Amino acid sequence: MKDSLYAIIVAGGSGSRMGAAIPKQFLRVAGRTILELTLQKFHQAIPEISIVVVLPEAEIPRWEYICRQEFICVPHVVVSGGQTRFHSVKNGLDTISDPQGIVAIHDGVRPFVSARAIAESFKQAAIFGNATLSVPLKDSIRRKMGESTIAEPRTDFLLVQTPQTFQIPLIQAAFATDYQPFFTDDASVAEYAGQQIHLIEGNDENIKITTPQDLIIAEALYAKNPFGEK
Amino acid sequence: MKDSLYAIIVAGGSGSRMGAAIPKQFLRVAGRTILELTLQKFHQAIPEISIVVVLPEAEIPRWEYICRQEFICVPHVVVSGGQTRFHSVKNGLDTISDPQGIVAIHDGVRPFVSARAIAESFKQAAIFGNATLSVPLKDSIRRKMGESTIAEPRTDFLLVQTPQTFQIPLIQAAFATDYQPFFTDDASVAEYAGQQIHLIEGNDENIKITTPQDLIIAEALYAKNPFGEK
Repeated sequence: MKDSLYAIIVAGGSGSRMGAAIPKQFLRVAGRTILELTLQKFHQAIPEISIVVVLPEAEIPRWEYICRQEFICVPHVVVSGGQTRFHSVKNGLDTISDPQGIVAIHDGVRPFVSARAIAESFKQAAIFGNATLSVPLKDSIRRKMGESTIAEPRTDFLLVQTPQTFQIPLIQAAFATDYQPFFTDDASVAEYAGQQIHLIEGNDENIKITTPQDLIIAEALYAKNPFGEK
Repeated sequence: MKDSLYAIIVAGGSGSRMGAAIPKQFLRVAGRTILELTLQKFHQAIPEISIVVVLPEAEIPRWEYICRQEFICVPHVVVSGGQTRFHSVKNGLDTISDPQGIVAIHDGVRPFVSARAIAESFKQAAIFGNATLSVPLKDSIRRKMGESTIAEPRTDFLLVQTPQTFQIPLIQAAFATDYQPFFTDDASVAEYAGQQIHLIEGNDENIKITTPQDLIIAEALYAKNPFGEK
């Protein structure tokens, strides 16, 4: 029997870095909300996937209004988020009861993840328990040491993207803990529970849209390769 | 007396990541070579600056041909590069004899550094001995540990850009050493010589153009804000 596949799309951000009046997941690229583009990407990659969108409670009516007005036709359910990403993801996980399933947890503002990377993350999570996208650093890196900093070897590090994909019983067990301030992402929660994190190759285009510059870049990436035409 | 200002623009790359037949500094954005755009940015920021361009020996005729054909009018001198970035920068430094001067060492494929950041790096290097542009990480980060990796706190790190700007006697003294394989950038050479590295705020647009995706982004950034119109 094939595993059932789920995605939790986390869109809890308030968009403060963007300087915009509305949360960044509702800003538009090519005339469409970033959140819709992200949903569309998952739906196209895996048509049978079950999608859970996590939104701040106060933003749910706005999203429902957008969906109605614009006939957004990617099937999904909506749950309200919590105080931190950890709490938001936990709320999403609480809606899933499928001990055979696999879930990809993904940032709502990363519409440019490739269909290949999504599919690969499910495939590898089925084998290894989890799979997290990562890419090498392009710039040099320095570590803060009090008031000063020191050079670190760039090749010792990897930048982490989403999706971070997990076998459902394993990630639910990991999220059954209390929130810890050092949880940087979902993989760090699984790691805290003793699970070894399995990294797979992400894609360069898979940027997190958080600044006005990112919106310019997003328009260019979308114009070069509109969804559904590759 | 005011310090004399210099820039060493390092364009030694072979462009292997770009998959192009010509080195990436000669690829075009808005119809112009990336290297020309970088020179133009420095010239506009500080018209009296003295610019040294470091190129692979074999690429110098191509650059000279481009300059003649396209009437590139940013004054500069050209020196040939070495086996590594360290050797290339050293060749550039060897052409400067000005114990009062300050030099910004900059990647030839970063045309989007802001005029503000260039000016600030000279100002701060005059005070602190050196000044290096850096920006915070936007993605989570993991450190390699043998076959595995572990989460690191993103806020403990900074990504380093160029220019990396130095008082000339200090950086020449630092480069009077032998090459070390852990030299990741010019600041790491100064650090090895015992100098404390002073970081200043870079600008988000200041990307290093190294992949075909970066070229798409560069076109979008340039279209949004063409040089000379800000």
